[in-house]
Amino acid sequence: MLNIPSNLNLRIPGPTPLPPAVREALALPMIGHRSEAFRELHHRVVQGLKAMLRTENDVFVLTSSGSGGMEAAVVNTLSPGERVLSVSIGHFGTRFRAIARTYGVEIVPLDVEWGRAAEPEAVGTALDQHPDVAAVLITHNETSTGVTNPLQEIAAVVKAHRGPTGRPPLLLVDAISSAGCLPLETDAWGLDVVVTGSQKGWMIPPGLAFVTMSPAAWEAHAQVKTARFYFDLSVARENLAKNQTPWTPAVNLFYGLAVALDLMEQEGLDAIVARHRRVGEHTRRRLKAMGLKLFADERYASNTVTAIHAPAGVDVEEMRKVLEKEYGVVLAGGQGPLRGKIFRIGHLGNVYEEDIDAALEAIRRYLEGARGE
Amino acid sequence: MLNIPSNLNLRIPGPTPLPPAVREALALPMIGHRSEAFRELHHRVVQGLKAMLRTENDVFVLTSSGSGGMEAAVVNTLSPGERVLSVSIGHFGTRFRAIARTYGVEIVPLDVEWGRAAEPEAVGTALDQHPDVAAVLITHNETSTGVTNPLQEIAAVVKAHRGPTGRPPLLLVDAISSAGCLPLETDAWGLDVVVTGSQKGWMIPPGLAFVTMSPAAWEAHAQVKTARFYFDLSVARENLAKNQTPWTPAVNLFYGLAVALDLMEQEGLDAIVARHRRVGEHTRRRLKAMGLKLFADERYASNTVTAIHAPAGVDVEEMRKVLEKEYGVVLAGGQGPLRGKIFRIGHLGNVYEEDIDAALEAIRRYLEGARGE
Repeated sequence: MLNIPSNLNLRIPGPTPLPPAVREALALPMIGHRSEAFRELHHRVVQGLKAMLRTENDVFVLTSSGSGGMEAAVVNTLSPGERVLSVSIGHFGTRFRAIARTYGVEIVPLDVEWGRAAEPEAVGTALDQHPDVAAVLITHNETSTGVTNPLQEIAAVVKAHRGPTGRPPLLLVDAISSAGCLPLETDAWGLDVVVTGSQKGWMIPPGLAFVTMSPAAWEAHAQVKTARFYFDLSVARENLAKNQTPWTPAVNLFYGLAVALDLMEQEGLDAIVARHRRVGEHTRRRLKAMGLKLFADERYASNTVTAIHAPAGVDVEEMRKVLEKEYGVVLAGGQGPLRGKIFRIGHLGNVYEEDIDAALEAIRRYLEGARGE
Repeated sequence: MLNIPSNLNLRIPGPTPLPPAVREALALPMIGHRSEAFRELHHRVVQGLKAMLRTENDVFVLTSSGSGGMEAAVVNTLSPGERVLSVSIGHFGTRFRAIARTYGVEIVPLDVEWGRAAEPEAVGTALDQHPDVAAVLITHNETSTGVTNPLQEIAAVVKAHRGPTGRPPLLLVDAISSAGCLPLETDAWGLDVVVTGSQKGWMIPPGLAFVTMSPAAWEAHAQVKTARFYFDLSVARENLAKNQTPWTPAVNLFYGLAVALDLMEQEGLDAIVARHRRVGEHTRRRLKAMGLKLFADERYASNTVTAIHAPAGVDVEEMRKVLEKEYGVVLAGGQGPLRGKIFRIGHLGNVYEEDIDAALEAIRRYLEGARGE
């Protein structure tokens, strides 16, 4: 009854392709979300997420997209009138900032030209100029430009800073398109809140967001005045202690997640990170060999998504349509001001060199045809 | 790898059992959420929902549980300091009220003893005493007590009322466990916001909430000062015009929903409502024949869930554990003050008399054993 294309080479930065075992799990029968079976499942996925996020902090599984997780990060740690340093290097940095502004948080912007990463020194200078900021908001991997911020170095700068209270600001990280793919050490780097989304490195459909909360984040939380209900992590914490969620969770996505976390554990986080690095480097090397120009500063090129300048004379939106229709290759376009100016190839989650090669071969043929006309 | 019990007789008021065609759809491969295929899917489910909710109003599909949909209803139509008449006949009426209070809305409570329905006259009297309320919040079907409010009559009272502005208050309806099961006429009854959830009558897993907005709700929305981001329906409306969602949606739940709506269309809404009435009456008749005492005022007994007093000397929480373990029959317990005092049988969604008979037979055997000891 449903006409959903199968065998797509889904080369967008999420949703990412589902491993067969995940697909199978998604179709399992329903259970009650207050049952012992669900409590075991909840416990299992939280343990798996902690291992992959390298944290002993509380991890919450929210039924929402990643943007809901970003909202949870903001409304649980910040109050109206507080100031934050908002580091933006692209579309999703701007979104994180917009969420904070929506809830009355005052923004100290640190804007970096799209395609470049934030420099740790620039963050340090901004903190020196604004010593009173309560938090730093940053995107780990900027999906819109294909740039990975040097998060470890930036976190070191943030955590070495002392505000008027004698404590460092909270560090809130949008790791939606990096967690489970790129090096990310929640505890070792001192990340207070880490947000990620199910449809990225986790290889399951969209619909779940994962959010970590450090002890310092909980201390801030206790004072926060922002109104919140669905995303209130106080209530989620009470339920977490019982291996439950406050509201009815997306049960079948939990099934898929448990299986995906098993697959990740079997491969091993180090091997997963190495595979993403290998596939990312392969993608960039082959694109350059095709004469295409990469958008991102190569020193900070993302190993989960690559942005490519539109070749001269090529309508990349038209190219994307043709590639999907004729080759089943799905690419992403540019977002916001980059629409029509770049296209993007996702390489995260369940991805290998041959997926990239097939996509690049389709691009090559299309461009040959376009040039031949 | 996953040990999920199959063949459960899931007799809780959601999640409800999944039809096989829905389960199959949930396992389909991923597609991009900005693709033409997704836009077609989105259009299709919105049209199907409009037909089932009997409305020409905008219908939004949110990636959240039903409680997220209730939050969307509140934050999109009410401002801090506004007053609402909050009709509560049980646990979920209290939740709707708690959400409004969280966002600074002043509550005029109309509390009805649990087990009884709200009387239209009582709503009229409350509106006469508080002519300035901006909205009325009401639960259509109270899952915690198994009572269905006479919504059509109450809506008529609300819509006949004229506030200081010369207009009736908005009517916000939690129809989470009624829509798609019980008579519900969004447009004909003048319901301004209707909220429902995917894991109830819609026969798919939890993870999606559906919210309707009337023209009057949009007029109120234009003036609303409540901060909101993830659940902001202005942004959702801009995206709805393009058959998209602002944030990445739970794509595979859309697959299941499209198939479930096909099944519902094939059966026909009138036949679905008649089946729920028939199964509800069957459930109550058989329970009474077993000598069990129903909790709800029979005039307003719900055709989606039945609450039963704990038989004297029976630990219903223990009974629920044994029934699940030995018979695969999953019942719901009491919530809040009713914990241990009642148990509940869900009969909504993909349910027939034989499902009820199997559950009641297991209960009968258990009670026989308990009495025999």
